[in-house]
Amino acid sequence: MRKIRAFGISEKPDDPIPGVHWCAMKIFHPLLLLCLVAAAQSPSSVRVNGQRIHEHLKDLSKFGANPQGGVSRVAYSEADLQGRQYAISLMKAAGLDIDIDLAGNIVGTHAGSDASLKPLLIGSHIDSVPMGGNYDGDVGSLSAIEIAQTLKEKQITLRHPLEVIIFQNEEGGTVGSQALGEGLDEKHLNLVSNSGKTIREGTRIVGGDPERLVSARRQPGSIAGYFELHIEQGGALEREKIDIGVVEGIVGILHSDVTIEGFANHAETTPMDQRHDALLSAARFIEKVNQIVTSVPGRQVGTVGWIKVEPGAYNVIPGKVVLGLELRDLDEEKFVSLFKQIQTEAEGLGRQNQTRFAFTDPGLSHPALTDKSFQKLIDDTARSLGFTTKVMPSGAGHDAQEIARLGPVGMIFIPSIGGISHSPKEFSRPQDIENGANVLLQAVLAFDKTH
Amino acid sequence: MRKIRAFGISEKPDDPIPGVHWCAMKIFHPLLLLCLVAAAQSPSSVRVNGQRIHEHLKDLSKFGANPQGGVSRVAYSEADLQGRQYAISLMKAAGLDIDIDLAGNIVGTHAGSDASLKPLLIGSHIDSVPMGGNYDGDVGSLSAIEIAQTLKEKQITLRHPLEVIIFQNEEGGTVGSQALGEGLDEKHLNLVSNSGKTIREGTRIVGGDPERLVSARRQPGSIAGYFELHIEQGGALEREKIDIGVVEGIVGILHSDVTIEGFANHAETTPMDQRHDALLSAARFIEKVNQIVTSVPGRQVGTVGWIKVEPGAYNVIPGKVVLGLELRDLDEEKFVSLFKQIQTEAEGLGRQNQTRFAFTDPGLSHPALTDKSFQKLIDDTARSLGFTTKVMPSGAGHDAQEIARLGPVGMIFIPSIGGISHSPKEFSRPQDIENGANVLLQAVLAFDKTH
Repeated sequence: MRKIRAFGISEKPDDPIPGVHWCAMKIFHPLLLLCLVAAAQSPSSVRVNGQRIHEHLKDLSKFGANPQGGVSRVAYSEADLQGRQYAISLMKAAGLDIDIDLAGNIVGTHAGSDASLKPLLIGSHIDSVPMGGNYDGDVGSLSAIEIAQTLKEKQITLRHPLEVIIFQNEEGGTVGSQALGEGLDEKHLNLVSNSGKTIREGTRIVGGDPERLVSARRQPGSIAGYFELHIEQGGALEREKIDIGVVEGIVGILHSDVTIEGFANHAETTPMDQRHDALLSAARFIEKVNQIVTSVPGRQVGTVGWIKVEPGAYNVIPGKVVLGLELRDLDEEKFVSLFKQIQTEAEGLGRQNQTRFAFTDPGLSHPALTDKSFQKLIDDTARSLGFTTKVMPSGAGHDAQEIARLGPVGMIFIPSIGGISHSPKEFSRPQDIENGANVLLQAVLAFDKTH
Repeated sequence: MRKIRAFGISEKPDDPIPGVHWCAMKIFHPLLLLCLVAAAQSPSSVRVNGQRIHEHLKDLSKFGANPQGGVSRVAYSEADLQGRQYAISLMKAAGLDIDIDLAGNIVGTHAGSDASLKPLLIGSHIDSVPMGGNYDGDVGSLSAIEIAQTLKEKQITLRHPLEVIIFQNEEGGTVGSQALGEGLDEKHLNLVSNSGKTIREGTRIVGGDPERLVSARRQPGSIAGYFELHIEQGGALEREKIDIGVVEGIVGILHSDVTIEGFANHAETTPMDQRHDALLSAARFIEKVNQIVTSVPGRQVGTVGWIKVEPGAYNVIPGKVVLGLELRDLDEEKFVSLFKQIQTEAEGLGRQNQTRFAFTDPGLSHPALTDKSFQKLIDDTARSLGFTTKVMPSGAGHDAQEIARLGPVGMIFIPSIGGISHSPKEFSRPQDIENGANVLLQAVLAFDKTH
């Protein structure tokens, strides 16, 4: 086994399609320089074993399987613990040293050839929402393990230490990754997760130590970078027939519950001009939200997704409405400003219709931008493998947004059929998964070469 | 005991404020003509016993009493049967001959002095909604019985046969009165009432014969008239400090469930201009209903009182909305035309927002106008007793609307505090109840005089 330090990888001599390796063999050949240039521009010939990922996905889907064909493997459940054991067995088989960190994340490490370098992280999560599917989180987790397995089989040692991380309880609020980045406070620990257990109880169950979480945090700048492969959870890639999504950032989210108080009264005996109809005010508010959000250019979205009316009968004028407002964008300043505009307009609507608007304090999830050079690396890698790409924001939250506090992150999306996710119907084609895993592998190799 | 046939009433000689009676005593006096004129304009001095109505209301409230202070005396329940037995006992004490008709209504009859005249009907119902109050129906029923009791005590025999009717299952769709008027069909009989029993089962339980309901129907023109006293079930009389409402008609109602089909999708990944947001379309629809209903003069009302959104989450664009539309007016042509306008506008809204509107076939309850001469009779009578009056529509349905098919009807409203009804909090002041019962009594006497 030889190392080609210039590229930071080593390959077995029997590599069937030698690529960089072949160039190295011809070290004394006059065409060496040409070879080196070609190698730097083309991806390594190493490929993941797509069939194996597929089988691992199938095996993992047994833990918490629901009758609808998906999984209900909520964090801290028995199924979650079984799934974690299964992941650990795969990680061990891939030659990784296993550690459960203080936050309860599974960390599989492979030492790099250069001990002075910071670790390169890859991973995702394997917990699901209740009545979830088999791809959200699983694809990224099992592909990250597959990268380690492939590197082992190809006897490739990276220059950087490699960490494959399976973050705990992503669906309950990116708990495991947040513990490494921003940290968890008492409020977080007391939250009850989908399993019915608090995050404190759950963290202990998965092997963490909720009393020592401060020590779980990692320092900003302590990692070389983090790559995460994930299903899109939207329908854009499939709709536009694009192979790979290059994520430019994870949008921030603003939530507020809006209560509109009117006066419930008999529809039959209250003249139209004497009504304080909370639903009529709500209707005008929903239209206004749409107008305000679309009044400025950009990709920001604003949604009223649920609404409740009291008392809720044909013949009673709605006295109270509560509805859920959500704003999302990569630019926090923008959506906070839109929210203020919406609040101001609501006051006017309230006066006009003699109803009263009240907003809960907005719940904020800050946007997290991926690293520009990581975006380029993923895009170049994917194209060199022959894939079409699209630079896009991630509307959904991911562990990557938390790890972005520690160092540069990059995210790779693959198509999700029909954009369905958080559902047993969630599905990504095996070929798309293999493509994504190969982009992840090549991005890791390329990063390791150049950093 | 003397009869003064000219006025159709007889009074005891010891009548403390003789009124018409005093005039008759002076039959040979030269001022006779003047007396007769005065008597025709002023009410009889006979009055109901307000305290007794109050006590009867209290006694009746025990049957089906709920902890909140109201009753849950739904038709066909044990409490309903007990309440009916109580009413029958009062009717017997008032000298009425009791019959349970084929529809299960309690009919208490007192023969009139002129056998050629058609019967004059008074009454209401004693069944309640679940978690109802002690005034809706009860006030009219017990006051009607009180009229019979008062006439008996004062030894007054009307010219017309008097029928005091307690209609069965008013709250389940004016069942008993409809059986006399329009008739009940198989569909009605199979409906399940609030008791859990079908109308067929319930009608048998209260002593009717669901197989012979055709024979329960009465012929149009077979009654001299029907008067019903009822609480307003709205807040207008109390708000405007008016004693007596003269009901000009019971408004017709049009119901339709409107389904708006959009496309449910992830809020985070679906751009604003690619959404088929069913709730946004619904909001525009609600605004449009308000615009259309208020675009023409009149007292018509249009209400969207309930709305359901699917799937109903912050981050999912609403894919489906169902909402309840209700239109009410005394003029059926008008609200049917407004409904057509609303349907046409909805089509446009659907196209604009790429959503699809569908309306269920409208459920129609036809308006029922009260008799103009009955309105005048009630209004004149109430004013002569010193009460303020207001001519008003009834937004809620009543047995009177069904009996209007058989002959002229009149309705008397008394104030309902805060307009609350169908609630344990429903309340009418004892004085208002006594006032209403006296108006009912005097209207009956005046009608009997003049018809």
